[in-house]
Formats: sequence, structure tokens, C-alpha cells
Amino acid sequence: MITNTNHSVTIDDLWELWPSLSEDERLEWFDQLSHDDAEDFFSSITCEDQSALIAAMTPHQQRQWMRILAPDDAADVLQLIDDEEMQRRLKTYLQDRVRNEVDALMAYKEDEAGGLMSPRFARIRPDMSIDEAILYIRRQIRDELETIYYIYVLDHQQHLLGVVSFEDLIKASGDKKVSDVMETDPTKVTDDMDQESVALIFAREDHFALPVVDADNVMKGIITIDDIVDVVNDEATEDFQKMGGMAALDNDYLQSSYGEMYKKRIVWLIALFCCTIFTTRVMDYYSNAIESAVILSVFVPLIMASGGNTGSQAATLITRAMALGEIRQRDVLRVFKREFIVSGCLGLTLGVIAFLVATGFYLMGTFPAGDGIYLRLCLTIAISVLILVIYGSLVGSMLPFLLRLCHVDPASASAPFVTTIVDVSSIIIYFTIAMMLLKGFL
Amino acid sequence: MITNTNHSVTIDDLWELWPSLSEDERLEWFDQLSHDDAEDFFSSITCEDQSALIAAMTPHQQRQWMRILAPDDAADVLQLIDDEEMQRRLKTYLQDRVRNEVDALMAYKEDEAGGLMSPRFARIRPDMSIDEAILYIRRQIRDELETIYYIYVLDHQQHLLGVVSFEDLIKASGDKKVSDVMETDPTKVTDDMDQESVALIFAREDHFALPVVDADNVMKGIITIDDIVDVVNDEATEDFQKMGGMAALDNDYLQSSYGEMYKKRIVWLIALFCCTIFTTRVMDYYSNAIESAVILSVFVPLIMASGGNTGSQAATLITRAMALGEIRQRDVLRVFKREFIVSGCLGLTLGVIAFLVATGFYLMGTFPAGDGIYLRLCLTIAISVLILVIYGSLVGSMLPFLLRLCHVDPASASAPFVTTIVDVSSIIIYFTIAMMLLKGFL
Repeated sequence: MITNTNHSVTIDDLWELWPSLSEDERLEWFDQLSHDDAEDFFSSITCEDQSALIAAMTPHQQRQWMRILAPDDAADVLQLIDDEEMQRRLKTYLQDRVRNEVDALMAYKEDEAGGLMSPRFARIRPDMSIDEAILYIRRQIRDELETIYYIYVLDHQQHLLGVVSFEDLIKASGDKKVSDVMETDPTKVTDDMDQESVALIFAREDHFALPVVDADNVMKGIITIDDIVDVVNDEATEDFQKMGGMAALDNDYLQSSYGEMYKKRIVWLIALFCCTIFTTRVMDYYSNAIESAVILSVFVPLIMASGGNTGSQAATLITRAMALGEIRQRDVLRVFKREFIVSGCLGLTLGVIAFLVATGFYLMGTFPAGDGIYLRLCLTIAISVLILVIYGSLVGSMLPFLLRLCHVDPASASAPFVTTIVDVSSIIIYFTIAMMLLKGFL
Repeated sequence: MITNTNHSVTIDDLWELWPSLSEDERLEWFDQLSHDDAEDFFSSITCEDQSALIAAMTPHQQRQWMRILAPDDAADVLQLIDDEEMQRRLKTYLQDRVRNEVDALMAYKEDEAGGLMSPRFARIRPDMSIDEAILYIRRQIRDELETIYYIYVLDHQQHLLGVVSFEDLIKASGDKKVSDVMETDPTKVTDDMDQESVALIFAREDHFALPVVDADNVMKGIITIDDIVDVVNDEATEDFQKMGGMAALDNDYLQSSYGEMYKKRIVWLIALFCCTIFTTRVMDYYSNAIESAVILSVFVPLIMASGGNTGSQAATLITRAMALGEIRQRDVLRVFKREFIVSGCLGLTLGVIAFLVATGFYLMGTFPAGDGIYLRLCLTIAISVLILVIYGSLVGSMLPFLLRLCHVDPASASAPFVTTIVDVSSIIIYFTIAMMLLKGFL
């Protein structure tokens, strides 16, 4: 293990500094922790940080730290090492048994159940007596089980027959059989299930751990809920960033390179920018109308905003509800109805305000002269707002359904994306209404 | 317990239907579950759903179901019952001991550690031998402990001295003392800590449960990680909705009433709308410029969008990173630097594209005649885009810091909010540059 003379740094100091440190600084500070602190700290940082640290270490240190990782963590860390040569070398540092477990785990994608699970679980046979079982478990504890909170009952072919909590075991009288006390047909996940679905199951059922089985119900490992907390956070962050109108980052904000930050953001910006070019074409199309009544162009930003804002609201609501499984594809019509009714009321409210605002402008004498143009202009603006608020919410709420139908992550229905879509149509709708109501003045 | 003749419904059927059912329908279906299924189902739904179900039940049923709730769940359910009369009555259904525990828990806010904790934890004394301790715990198990995974070591005044996992207890030799094997100074939370901070600690340290102590280090209860998964999801949802430009909903999307949906959304919409009115004032201010060159107004939507989109990206990135504790107030300057550099590159890219787009319009002959107006107009647009992209990211990234400084949730820096702020200034910046570069033509 690491031996260093200078233990000036405490674990709390480092926690404070950590986010602000560069990768090299991190190792420097880490080396100054006392041996026990270093172990505590190392085991509590994310596997991203662990692999970054290890990558920066001397081979001697790498050997030490790879060996204290549990097989599932070791697999995650190795998967994050891009340099294949180093990855291979790091693997050789592991004890043989762990290496085999790691190889098995690395066969799975990082974001599916198999990639999250640990192969270290407590197992007993159904025909054991409670006392035999407890003895048998106490012997297994030596090989660092992920948890003894649940013990899994397997037949000789490792098929999952049931589960029993350690609590129930020691509650039961010692001469009973395991099969008498075990819960048959327990909640389980398959090794190829994606981590988002696994997280939803954990959120629904209050288990500390769930067994992972393959297609033949052979038990492969367990997923413990502490890994799920990270999954839930990661998935949410990914959605947040997509909904902010960008690709999801691979690292923390402060840890991402300028290059990554640029790449992840420019793609969407260019896409959005190109869509927005249409607004220019459309505006240009109506330039004659604008020429004859500049006042029309004056309200364009206001009209566009009202559609965009309600659209963003709707898109965010629906996307999140989908991510949490509150809304399924087949709810599309109910959502449409809801959004139509709600946005109708929202539109009426904003329409009235818009009417008053327009009147204000009239009173300030910014309207061109002309009999009855006042009322018609105010109506144009009010009606446009009403229609665009409804239109915006419907676009914003239906887009996530459409995206999912095309197997695109609904979270891509970001506020900027929706706003952009709505913007173009806003101008068309607005000027169309203006043309109708202001015929004769334009 | 519920007795019903017709068990046509399985627990999975109900899970499928649940989100789509109205509150009355929910009870109807629930009543058709077999007794065991009903218990499994009831314990796996959210406390919001539990309290809604209970509120709809007959007093006889209410008594049955209140009594199967663990004290912490009972407290949550009761806190969600608005009708004080019913709340009082439901409480009388509880066993005396539970009622006292519930009263203690209800003294806490729902979103602070005290409101999340369960008072049912395993406790031992430091001077016990391991064998005594195990015996002592097996006796405590009878009163439904939240978990025996961790056992807490308390002195006679209930001060928290240390913690030991059941695993370590049974690993240790029976004649040792608890004080020899216990971990002193364990990670703990105070009863008034807010749930977001508690969730961050769970995400950081891989514990299944954490002890909750008061200001005098007297142990009050434990928080188990399964409650934290819900907290993490709830907090994320709240942020999502705020960032969508609305107040957070109290219920699932499909369960919220039209009235609530309207109220939560209209407030922000009106606020945003009123801010946007400034755009109209500003546009009006430049109406002469527009009159002399309508082409200027044609590019307004494009210019506004480029600032708004980068702003949304930056705001989302920073807000989420803050929520996860990746960014603290004092990182403000580093964030500013990052955003400045990144948005500089983003701006240059989009600026070039804008220049080409403008050229396209020139070639299509939409530009007014005049020597050199082409180049100046294209520059006006390109430079405006460059400046506004930088300006947008800086506003979007600094706003969350500002809000937090004013003790407002940074998540309120929603995409629509940022876009609105940026919109007004976009127009000013754009026309100012136009005035300078197009002097003589306007």
C-alpha cells in the first residue's frame, strides 16, 4: 500500500478541493493522504475519478490500488481506460480470481444491468436447514461479499429459486428448511436490461439489492442500490444537458476539456442556427407588409417568445414524465387533450395581456394613422398570441412522443429545439393573421 | 385486513394501469387485488398515492391500512392529508407506540433529514461482548427494524458513539467487546439537514443507511438509501420543471389537475411575457432604422436565437453542475473564463456561418442598393452573432451564481428565462452595431 511520510492533508480538505483540481494536482494531493484516508477516499470517488487517478499513477501504485477494487468497480475502471496497452497491463495486477470475474463483467455494456452487477453475493441451497445456512454464509463472508443483507437460494445449476433476508434467517427457528422461509419468485432483472429500467424498478420496489439473471434464470450477480443512486443522477444529468440543447458531456463540467465542451455544444447550435435561417427567409417574404407597417415587425419578438416559452414548458414536462415512466406512448391522446385545454387557458390569459399592451402602444401614438387600424392591430396581436401559445404547447408536448417513435431519446426535445421549430411558424401565423385583419392597410 | 371475494386483478395488471387511472378508479381496482398482492402493492407505491388511496377508503379500511405503515411512511402519508379532521382521525387508528413515533417525525419538515428518517434502528452498548450484542439484536428484530445491516452503538444518553455492520459483528470473535470492532466517528447527518444535501452524501459514500443525530449528537433515527432514490428523482424533476420555465408540480403530470397545471405555468409565462414587452419597446425605438432598411428587421429573429440558444446551454450546464455539487459559488471566475473561451469559439463558428447566410441573401438580391452596403450588412450580422453568442453564454452561466447569491434556487435560471433576458439586449446590440457600420445608409 502507499506509504508516504507527509500526512498534512485530511480527507475533508481533499473533498473540498477535489472538484477544482486538475488531474495531476489530484494525484499529488491524493499521495499526501494517510494510508487509511487514502483507502476511504479512493473507494468513495466515482469510477471516472478512480480510473483517471490510476492512469496517472506509477505501475507500483497502480498494482496496489487495482487490487483493493471490488470486481465490479475494477471492471468499470478498466472500461474507462482508453489506452488498451495500459488496460491490459492493469488487468494483470489483479488476483487471478478477480481477473476472471472482471473479464466476465467487461463482456457487458457499461449501461446495462450486467455492467452494474457484482458477482459477489451470498448463496445457499433450498434443502439446507437454517442453522446450516447461517454457518455456510458466515464462511462465505470471508470472500468480501457485496452484501449479506439478502441471501440467494440457488439449485446446483445456479438457477435462482428464491431469496431470503439475513434478518428472516436469524428470526426463523434453526431446524426449519431454507425452502420454508425463502421468498419464491423474487423481483429480478435480466443481465441485458438497460440501467434506466433497472433504476425505475429500484425506485418502485424498496429493495437494497436485486438479483441479476440471464435468459435461463441462471444467477449472474447482484446490483446494490448504492450503484443505482449514481445511475439515477447520471441519467438525469444526461437529460438535463440534452434538454439544454446540447450533447451530453462525458465528464463533470469543470473536468471537461475546452475541446469536448465546444464539440458537444456546437453541433446543436449549428443545427438550430440553420433552422432559424428559415425565420429570415419568412421575414423577408413579408418585408413588403413590414415596409407598409413597420409596427408589425415591432411585435415579432413578443409573438415569437410566447409560443417558444409555452413550448419549452410542455416539452420539459412531457420528457421528464416519460423518463420516470409516468407517461407511455399510448397516453399520447390524453396528453394532447390536457395540453390543448391548459394551453387554451394560458393563451386566453396572455392574449388579453397582449391586447392591453398593444393598446398601450396605441395610446403612446406608435400606431400608424388609419380608421379602425387600432382595433384590428390589437386583435392581430392578441389572436396571434392565443393561437401560438396553443400551437407551442402542442408542438412541445407531441415532439417527445414523435422522437421516441423514431427511437430518438425524447430528451432531445430541448427548449431551444422546440423554440426554434415554433419560431418559424410563429412568424407565418402572425403575418397571415395580420394580412387577413389588416387587409386594405397593407 | 381487506377481504374481497373477487381477485381477478393481478399486481402487474394494476401496475400497468396505475398511471392512467383516476383516484376513484384506483381504489376500485386496488380493492380487487388479493390480500397479499394488495399489501405488496400498497407498500410499493409512493406516499402521495398511498395517502390518496387512504383518503378515499372507508374508515374500516383506513384503520387496516394505516396500521401496516412503518412510522416514517405513516408520517409522510399523514402530512399529505390536507383535511385536518381526517388527519387527526387517521392518527387515532395507529398503535400507541407508532403514534408517538409519528408525532415525533411530523415535527420535522418533509424535505429535511428528520422527515425522511425512521426511528426503528438496531442499537447496542459499547461495553457489550459481541455474543451479547448479537443476542440483543436478535431480540430487537421483533419490533420491525428498518434494517439490521448497520447497528448503532449508543451510550445511556443515546449519544451516537459508533456504528458496526452486522457483517463485522458475526465475523468478529464472540468474546471481543463491541467498542473494539465498532467504527468510531461514522458518517452522520443532522436532523435539520435538507434532503438534497443528504442525497449528495449518499451519492458520495456508499452506505445503505446513515444515522440522523440532533445538535447534541443524540441519535434520532436512520435514513435508508431506498428513500434517497426517490429524493434524487424528485429533486431532479423539480429542477427539470423549473428549468422548463415553470413552477414545480406537486403531482405526476397525468395526476395534476388542470387548475394546478394552469397556475404552475401561467406565473412564469406572464413574467416572461412582460419582460419580452421590452423587446417591443426597443424594436419600436429602432423603427426608423427599420423603415430605411427593412432588411435589418429580417435578421432580428436569427440574431436573437443565436444568443438565446447558447444562453440556454450555459444555464443548463451550470445549474445541473451546481445541483450535483460539482460547482460551488467560489468557482464563479473559473466558470466565467471557461464560458468566455468556449463561447468565443462557438461565436466565431456561428459568425462565419452567419456571414455566408447573409451573402446568400445578397446574391438573391434582397439587399437594398448602395455601394459597399453588402459587406457592411454582412459584417453587422456576423459580428452581432459573435458578440451575442459570447454575451448569451456569459449571462446564462453567471445567472445561476447570481440567483444562488440571492438565495433563489439556481434552477430558476430556465432556458426561457435566459432567452428572454438575452432577447432584449440582442436587439439593442444588433441595432447599435448596425448604426455604427451602416452609418450613412440609415
